[in-house]
Amino acid sequence: MIQFNLLQQKGSLRLGEITTARGIVIPTPVFMPVGSQGAVKTLAMEDVKECDVNLILNNVFHLFLRPGVDIIESQGGLHKFISWDRAILTDSGGYQVFSLLGKRKVKEEGVVFQSHIDGGYHTFTPEMVIELQHRLGVDIAMSFDYCIEYPAAEKEVEKAGQITYRWAKRGLEKHRQLSEQKSECPALFGIIQGGTYPHLREQSAEQLIELDFDGYSVGGLSVGEPTEEMLNMVEILHPLLPEHKPRYLMGVGTPLDIIQAVSRGIDMFDCVIPTRHGRNGTVYTWDGKLVVKNAEYARDNRPIDPNCDCEVCKNYSRAYIRHLFKAGELLAPRLATYHNIYFYSRFMRAIRESIREDKFDSLYSRIKDVYPAKKDATIPRFEG
Amino acid sequence: MIQFNLLQQKGSLRLGEITTARGIVIPTPVFMPVGSQGAVKTLAMEDVKECDVNLILNNVFHLFLRPGVDIIESQGGLHKFISWDRAILTDSGGYQVFSLLGKRKVKEEGVVFQSHIDGGYHTFTPEMVIELQHRLGVDIAMSFDYCIEYPAAEKEVEKAGQITYRWAKRGLEKHRQLSEQKSECPALFGIIQGGTYPHLREQSAEQLIELDFDGYSVGGLSVGEPTEEMLNMVEILHPLLPEHKPRYLMGVGTPLDIIQAVSRGIDMFDCVIPTRHGRNGTVYTWDGKLVVKNAEYARDNRPIDPNCDCEVCKNYSRAYIRHLFKAGELLAPRLATYHNIYFYSRFMRAIRESIREDKFDSLYSRIKDVYPAKKDATIPRFEG
Repeated sequence: MIQFNLLQQKGSLRLGEITTARGIVIPTPVFMPVGSQGAVKTLAMEDVKECDVNLILNNVFHLFLRPGVDIIESQGGLHKFISWDRAILTDSGGYQVFSLLGKRKVKEEGVVFQSHIDGGYHTFTPEMVIELQHRLGVDIAMSFDYCIEYPAAEKEVEKAGQITYRWAKRGLEKHRQLSEQKSECPALFGIIQGGTYPHLREQSAEQLIELDFDGYSVGGLSVGEPTEEMLNMVEILHPLLPEHKPRYLMGVGTPLDIIQAVSRGIDMFDCVIPTRHGRNGTVYTWDGKLVVKNAEYARDNRPIDPNCDCEVCKNYSRAYIRHLFKAGELLAPRLATYHNIYFYSRFMRAIRESIREDKFDSLYSRIKDVYPAKKDATIPRFEG
Repeated sequence: MIQFNLLQQKGSLRLGEITTARGIVIPTPVFMPVGSQGAVKTLAMEDVKECDVNLILNNVFHLFLRPGVDIIESQGGLHKFISWDRAILTDSGGYQVFSLLGKRKVKEEGVVFQSHIDGGYHTFTPEMVIELQHRLGVDIAMSFDYCIEYPAAEKEVEKAGQITYRWAKRGLEKHRQLSEQKSECPALFGIIQGGTYPHLREQSAEQLIELDFDGYSVGGLSVGEPTEEMLNMVEILHPLLPEHKPRYLMGVGTPLDIIQAVSRGIDMFDCVIPTRHGRNGTVYTWDGKLVVKNAEYARDNRPIDPNCDCEVCKNYSRAYIRHLFKAGELLAPRLATYHNIYFYSRFMRAIRESIREDKFDSLYSRIKDVYPAKKDATIPRFEG
């Protein structure tokens, strides 16, 4: 269970607060760093806390395959296993099973797929995916969905949406059974599919809303479609979704994507950009992004972002971090990742403040200036 | 310049205190974590401080090749560049030039060698190596030495010792010139060579002592010779070396090696073991070492070392760290390295306390129990 307080809504700009069953308070709009395998890559949990992060994303698909849910359960649950006492949302693995990882066969009952780790075959049913998330003891769980690739024919997208609906229903039933016996149980979100077809998005949303989930995720986006199409889908969904439930746009995005989606009513985000790009030497700042490992920074004694007060910017220069990247030091991806997670956290705080203080437009135009829109397709969100 | 206060000496057991020109106090016996390229691999400088480390080892050879001493100088010197306000000792690169890295040609003037990074040719002279360390602004510098491989014929070892002596003399002269103009200048150590030939070790020591260095390093050991031979060389040197100067055994070693060398009068150590082994999943504890990535720890909810109070042992279980190693997470080598550096730091503190409190024998026998002697050859110290 979660509580969601919508503190303020002006047009489609929303300011809210999620409170988990264990009492963790998460101001929204919020960005969740990705820690698929139980760690936000290169960072210790203390680092993530220092960045004022209250909610991280793990992935039940990854954790099921390795180390296995039984091991995590035997360690007292996922929070204890990874040493994280704030909130955890798990993705159900629909995206991973369908879009990226090897062989799989979809039946009405569920999906048979082959592990990318050892080649072994496994089955996921919507009931099982819910049960696994209950066993992990997460704060917010996702329904098991049928995520379809982009582009896909209308017929295929419709079929995937219908399966997603039936699976959501089965998963929800299982969730209600499991929740009866417990005082603290996860919240459960339904995942809206429908590709980039407006009427299929609407249909999927209406079906899931009828089932009454604790929140609604927008799935099947950020899979390579143009950013504009992604934003259109979000815009279409805004008036349909219940005001007093959180809305989560899965796998998004760049600072510009995020602020654009916030302006269309989204409350929650996750994306591999700050972690993956950080590991590759790209860092995000209040003046745009830069590739800190480039030669131009070899003698640059400024911090990554002179406007940032994170531990990395307080202590290290671009010249040093560039050197660490060139020298292959593992400290390099760590420092860049730390800064990026801190930047995303501060960026979300700035968004919330701007909504509260009625200054969203000026923040929006600042971000548009330093993160100009590109014709790039969206970036898939998987962090393996 | 450094000051060395010998606080206590009983037989060959020594307790001391180095004070650097900038006022950093380093209790001895001390272990220096290796950060050849300007970072203790996987760790941030804050981590190293948390482990109560006052003195780290960098390498002028690595830093000369990348990023280049001119860049570091332009950033305000090595301390500022790497964001470390405690003490730095630099190895002169003799070991790297001679033992491990590709092509090189020794002349009386110096060495021409080929970079392992870009294949370019460079020359190191003993004067230049001193000048580079002055430009880096390190606290303790090493003479440029001719480090010979093991095994080597007596004639070769003698020749290398003679060259080392002449280079030490030239370097010392340069050092004195450079120091005249400065209020804060590095201390300079001479490096004793002589392979595993007692009379050549004695000869090398006597020659260097006559030149009057600030301290004496024992080089050319831990290059593959049996541990017993290494300890014999240390034992021979003890009565020759001036009491009131620090003695540094380069590239050593395991906890057992260290405590055995302490019992033979050594004050300073460095070794890649805690960092390199940490990255490979081997961790050091008060009950011996263990390979935390092994299957037997998959469900072990104890910390790496139940007797350790480091941040890693306070927060994370063996099961989690094992999972991180298996999942290829960069957090894994970091956590294991942090613990190992902390362990080495606490181990050295325990050695100092045991000397002070006249309980060295009981610590020695405890370490011998949990780190039994092996017929292993010593482990070369290079961390590229």
